[in-house]
Order: sequence, then structure tokens, then C-alpha cells
Amino acid sequence: MTGCVHVTVDNAVAYVVIDNHGRRNAVSHTVFDELGSAITDLSCAPDVRVVILTGQGTDFSVGADLAAPAGSRTLRRDSIAADTARLRQVSSTLHRFHHLPQVTIAAIDGACAGAGLSLAAAADFRIASDRAVFNTAFVNAALSGDLGGVWLITKLLGGAKARELFLTPGKLTAQAALDLGLVTTVTGTESLHAEARDLAHRLASSAPLALRAMKQNLLQASTTSLSDYLLAEVDRMVQCFHSGDAHEAADAFLNKRVPSFTGR
Amino acid sequence: MTGCVHVTVDNAVAYVVIDNHGRRNAVSHTVFDELGSAITDLSCAPDVRVVILTGQGTDFSVGADLAAPAGSRTLRRDSIAADTARLRQVSSTLHRFHHLPQVTIAAIDGACAGAGLSLAAAADFRIASDRAVFNTAFVNAALSGDLGGVWLITKLLGGAKARELFLTPGKLTAQAALDLGLVTTVTGTESLHAEARDLAHRLASSAPLALRAMKQNLLQASTTSLSDYLLAEVDRMVQCFHSGDAHEAADAFLNKRVPSFTGR
Amino acid sequence: MTGCVHVTVDNAVAYVVIDNHGRRNAVSHTVFDELGSAITDLSCAPDVRVVILTGQGTDFSVGADLAAPAGSRTLRRDSIAADTARLRQVSSTLHRFHHLPQVTIAAIDGACAGAGLSLAAAADFRIASDRAVFNTAFVNAALSGDLGGVWLITKLLGGAKARELFLTPGKLTAQAALDLGLVTTVTGTESLHAEARDLAHRLASSAPLALRAMKQNLLQASTTSLSDYLLAEVDRMVQCFHSGDAHEAADAFLNKRVPSFTGR
Repeated sequence: MTGCVHVTVDNAVAYVVIDNHGRRNAVSHTVFDELGSAITDLSCAPDVRVVILTGQGTDFSVGADLAAPAGSRTLRRDSIAADTARLRQVSSTLHRFHHLPQVTIAAIDGACAGAGLSLAAAADFRIASDRAVFNTAFVNAALSGDLGGVWLITKLLGGAKARELFLTPGKLTAQAALDLGLVTTVTGTESLHAEARDLAHRLASSAPLALRAMKQNLLQASTTSLSDYLLAEVDRMVQCFHSGDAHEAADAFLNKRVPSFTGR
Repeated sequence: MTGCVHVTVDNAVAYVVIDNHGRRNAVSHTVFDELGSAITDLSCAPDVRVVILTGQGTDFSVGADLAAPAGSRTLRRDSIAADTARLRQVSSTLHRFHHLPQVTIAAIDGACAGAGLSLAAAADFRIASDRAVFNTAFVNAALSGDLGGVWLITKLLGGAKARELFLTPGKLTAQAALDLGLVTTVTGTESLHAEARDLAHRLASSAPLALRAMKQNLLQASTTSLSDYLLAEVDRMVQCFHSGDAHEAADAFLNKRVPSFTGR
Repeated sequence: MTGCVHVTVDNAVAYVVIDNHGRRNAVSHTVFDELGSAITDLSCAPDVRVVILTGQGTDFSVGADLAAPAGSRTLRRDSIAADTARLRQVSSTLHRFHHLPQVTIAAIDGACAGAGLSLAAAADFRIASDRAVFNTAFVNAALSGDLGGVWLITKLLGGAKARELFLTPGKLTAQAALDLGLVTTVTGTESLHAEARDLAHRLASSAPLALRAMKQNLLQASTTSLSDYLLAEVDRMVQCFHSGDAHEAADAFLNKRVPSFTGR
């Protein structure tokens, strides 16, 4: 039951790699178990500033693997109650991934479909190789979808694009995903991971408190009234402003030098 | 008081046609009465999988007809209370149309203005002929608008585009509407209805339970927190997964054949 | 403590000019004090139909001026409590600006950064000169941002674009802002104010009650369920419909003449 999600941390960037070999990185129940553990660890890791989620090999993830043995799937048709319980648990993993304190990047090669696309949509940035292929897929499998994909893409791109993507599923090229605004960058296949790493390092070089607080602002903007948002925004801003890093940034700006941040 | 809205059902697709002859399909109070009845019927019609809303002849609908006799209008200036009561009733018809269990398509030729545009915006898809002309119109008539148009277009396209469309009304070509994302497809005039029918048949060939559940996901994504959304999404997904159609879809996929869905 | 925000009213259009000379119109605490007073006055000015917010000289506003003397800044690092109190007050000014009964236009030349960009995002329209430069800036200063910028841009453009703009700040040309949908028009530098005035006059020539009610619709569309929205929309529509101006608009339309509105 181990070895499906690898986490390495290098230079304040965590690389979370889905590795379901021979299954095009299908998100088995084991993948979610291990992803859940990884998220628990990352959410308590103050030194990790950015998280890259990607797939081992040439696919991001094809989503659920309906051909896998029942025991390795989240949905097993054993009972409504058991399937509901397991899918709620997995949904809570998705929720925790979306709310990670770190900024997240999905680096997408090959297939990114179904629950795999939902996972990618829960990240803050999506970078795709030029051979990436996106597909909401669910309706084609007589399913209504899971892992918050519809909610996340509605918030990212609005209701018109979400309806088109989810009601009439089909293969979407990386370029089409870029035109839709679903991904921020398309790269050559060989430079996908370098591009993701460059973005991660750029983000990781920001003041850590400000980056985390900004992510909270972005999360809250989708779900709160302006009045409530402003109250929380003020608290975060004042906390950042009183940090050593804000002082350092101002001093570096005035003295035209590169700031050196400590996360305090 | 009859004959303004025609409903025919063919092959799991309902065609709802607004027919207010000589008035460019203005949405009279009678149109809304009959549309309300049609929606009541459709919402209880398990065999209807997709609804196409369109106008008889060469216009979708010019919106309210301010030149019509008072008795045929929703707003009559008889009293604030009576106008409010009637407009609330009509708004509830709009609300029920937006929440129909079926996926809806507006097939738009000619004028699509004011309350006519609000109706179109309440559909899941909008297909336009190349001579369609869109206009929010309300402010030009010294009115603030009705039938949820502002709410619906804000959710579809975001607040920036909604402000431009509603505060500075003007005629918008089909191509401009396509560029905005307000319509998904522009066709030649003669192929509008064939195109709408093709999309309807494509949608109707999906597994019925999944299509309806996906529409619920899309509706809820605009109005619910991610946590609450996920709870409902899980229930719908498990229900679909336990359907015969999901089993059929998986079997068809594995055996590389076209699935045959029964809606159970 | 005076002279940082100039307000003039001409022909139903108020011009609100931020003038922080030598500081590229940085939004000092004094600027917000005076802006707050201006907003109080404007919100009670029935004859003002449109508000243009702009900067004196060649910049809109660079945002907060971290190099200014502490006493002229909102955030002073004197204490968490005092900074929080002052930033809440300023946030409430932003909230009142966003909810002004009048339609608002930001006319943007030169720098529009940080809190300056938040202010611009709170307007209904943004018009930029071709040398305008936008920058969320906050994270680069080790800050999480204030004045609702993240909330406002998420509502205007969706979560995907908001994440890119705020997590990876950088200079954005006027053309890039236009492509994003952040501004509605880009003009030559010399015609910026004429363009803003033309839009203002067009808006001011609309029926005043309808324009104000439409703005309320647009504000409420971002924050309310469709059911609640419709209840309020109906009240506003009926009120407009019973106004003399709606009668005038209908009569002018039928008689093919230009309407003359009185705001009643």
C-alpha cells in the first residue's frame, strides 16, 4: 500500500509525484491515502514555500481507474454507505490540498482527466507541456464527477466555460486549455519540469509570510462578502507589515538591493 | 390566452418555441404564463433529456413589449403592488427555467434583447446565428432590468463584462457575443436549428442520470462553499456510480463498444 | 492636512482627483481621509450621476508610499492595534467607494499599483492610457495586500487570473490589461481624459434612477443567491417602471425622438 506518492523537498520547494505505474497515474484509493498523508505533512512544514504536484513519467493522471481491482479503488460498489464514506474522505483530501498554506503548481504532461483534472484545478497554477491533453471525462463514463472539479473550474473560469467543459466532455489540447485560461503556460515537453521549477523558485523567493497570506486572500475572495473579506485582509496585511521581512523589503527597495527574507 | 409557447418533444429533446407573432416574440405576460406551464411539465418529464428554447421565425425575443396593450404585459402601471406581484411570478418562472433538471440550449436568431436576453442567459448553452443581435437594452428604456439577467451574466462571464454589457447597452453582433463567451457557437442562419439539434442529441446520448447530476453540480458551484458543494457532489457521484448506466459505460469502454444507456 | 483630493462637479459628472505631488499620487493616510469625505459628499449628491476617479499629472497612483514619513501613512508600525484600526478605516472607505450609488470610472495614466490598483478595481469601468502600467506589487514588498484588491479582481476576472496577478506580481502594460479584461479601453495618452468624459456623459445621459438601480443589481449579483437577487431586482425594476423617466423613454421610443430624463 505504499510507494504511489513520492515527496521530495529541495530548496523550499516540495515535489509531490503521483506514481501509479502502468496505470497512467490513475488516482487509486492508495494514491489518495498517500496524498492525504503528504498534505498533512506539508501543511505543517514551515520551510516548504511552494508545492509542485506532478505525475511520474509521461502523464499527469488519467483520473480514477475503473479497470483496477475494486480494493484499490475509492468507489467499489460494495454499498452506497461505504462508497459515500470513502469518497467523502477523498474529497476532504482534495479540500485540504486546495487549502494548503503553500502556493501550489500542477505540472502537467500527457493525460489530465476526470479526477486528475479536478486535482490540477485545485492548484494555484497549472503549467502544461505541449502534448498535455485535458478531459473532464465524467459524463462520458455516466458519472457526475468528483473532487470538486466543477466548483473549482467555475471559480477559476466562470460558469459559461465550466458548462461547456463538463457537459460536453472531449479532449482539449494544451493550447486550447491556454486559450481558455485553464493553464497559465504551455512549454515544450522537455522543459515542463524546468519551467515549473523556475516558477516555484520565483514564488519561493517571495517573502514567505506574504505569500501564504496572499494565498489566504485568494481563497477567501471566492467565498466571502467584501465586508468580511476586508476584516480578514486587514489582519493579514498588518501582520505582514509588522514582520521583519516587510522591513527588509522596504529597506532593500530604498537601497536598490535584492532583499533577503527569513519568513519572520 | 393560448398559443404563444409551443412545446414538442422528439427523441428525448423538447423544443420550446416562443411565438408572439408580429411582436418579434416579445415576452408578454401570456408568454410567461405558458412558459411557466411548459416548465412545470418539463420538470416532471423524465424522458426529456435536453430542452431547446428558441423563437418562432427570425427572432429569439425582443424582450418585453412596451407598446403592447397593458393587459398583455407583466408590468402595467396599475399599482406598485400588482406589478410587483406579477413580476415576482415571472421571476419565479425564470428561476425554475434556470433550475430545470434538463440541460438547456437557447438557439438564437435575430433579436435577443432585454428580458429575452435574460431568458437566454438562464440556459446552459447559447448558440447564435450569424445575424443574431444581442442587447441588454434595459437602461436605454430607463429600466433596471429583470429576469435575473445581471446575476446570470455575472456568473457566466464575471463582473467586468457584466458591467460593460448592462451599464452601456448597445447592439452586439453574434461574433462579439462569441468573443465575450456569451455564446458558445455561431452558425450560418440556415444551420442554426440543425446545430442546436446536433448539440441536443449529443447531450441526450449521455447517460441521463449523470447529465442531470452534472447540471446540479454546475448550478451549485455558483452558490455554495466548497465544503458544502463537496458533500452534495459526493452523494450525486455515488448515486451515478451505482447506476446500471455507469456499469454499462465502464463495460462499453473496456470492450471498446458504444454504450447503450437506459437512465437507470 | 488638505489639498490631496480635489473634487469638481460639472454637468452631473464628478471628477475626483488624487493629488499627492512629488509622490506619484501615493495614497497617504491624508489622501484616504479626504477621499472618505469626498465619498460621503458624493453618496448624498443626487445630481451627480457619474464619478471619475483619476490622478493629478502623469500617474494614477503608485499605492502606499513606504518612504513617506510615518505620520502620513496608514500603516506606521506604532502598534498592531493602531495599524489595524487605521487600515480598517481605510478599508471602509474602499468599501464605500465600491458601493457608491453612482457609476464610477477610473481614468488611469502612468502607474497604477498596489493600493492604487485596488482603488481602480473598485470602480465600475477602467480606462487606461497606452502608457499606463499596472502592478499588484504587494508580494514584492513582503505584504499580502489591502483595499480589497484580491476580492475585487477575483469578482471581475475570475480566480485564475487573480492568482496570476497577485502571486507573481510584475509590470503589466495597458494592452496586457486590456487583453485580461482588467480595463475596457486603451487610449492615446492625450485623449485619456476626453475618453473618460465621453463615457461619463454617455452614462450620465441615461435615466438616473435606472442607472443607480442597475449598479445595485451589479453589486448584488456578486454576493447573493439568485432567489434573493430576484426579490430585490423586482423591487428596483417596478420602481423604475413607475418613474416618469420610464414613461418618457417609452414615449420617446414610440415617437422616435431622444428622451429627456429628469431623474424621477
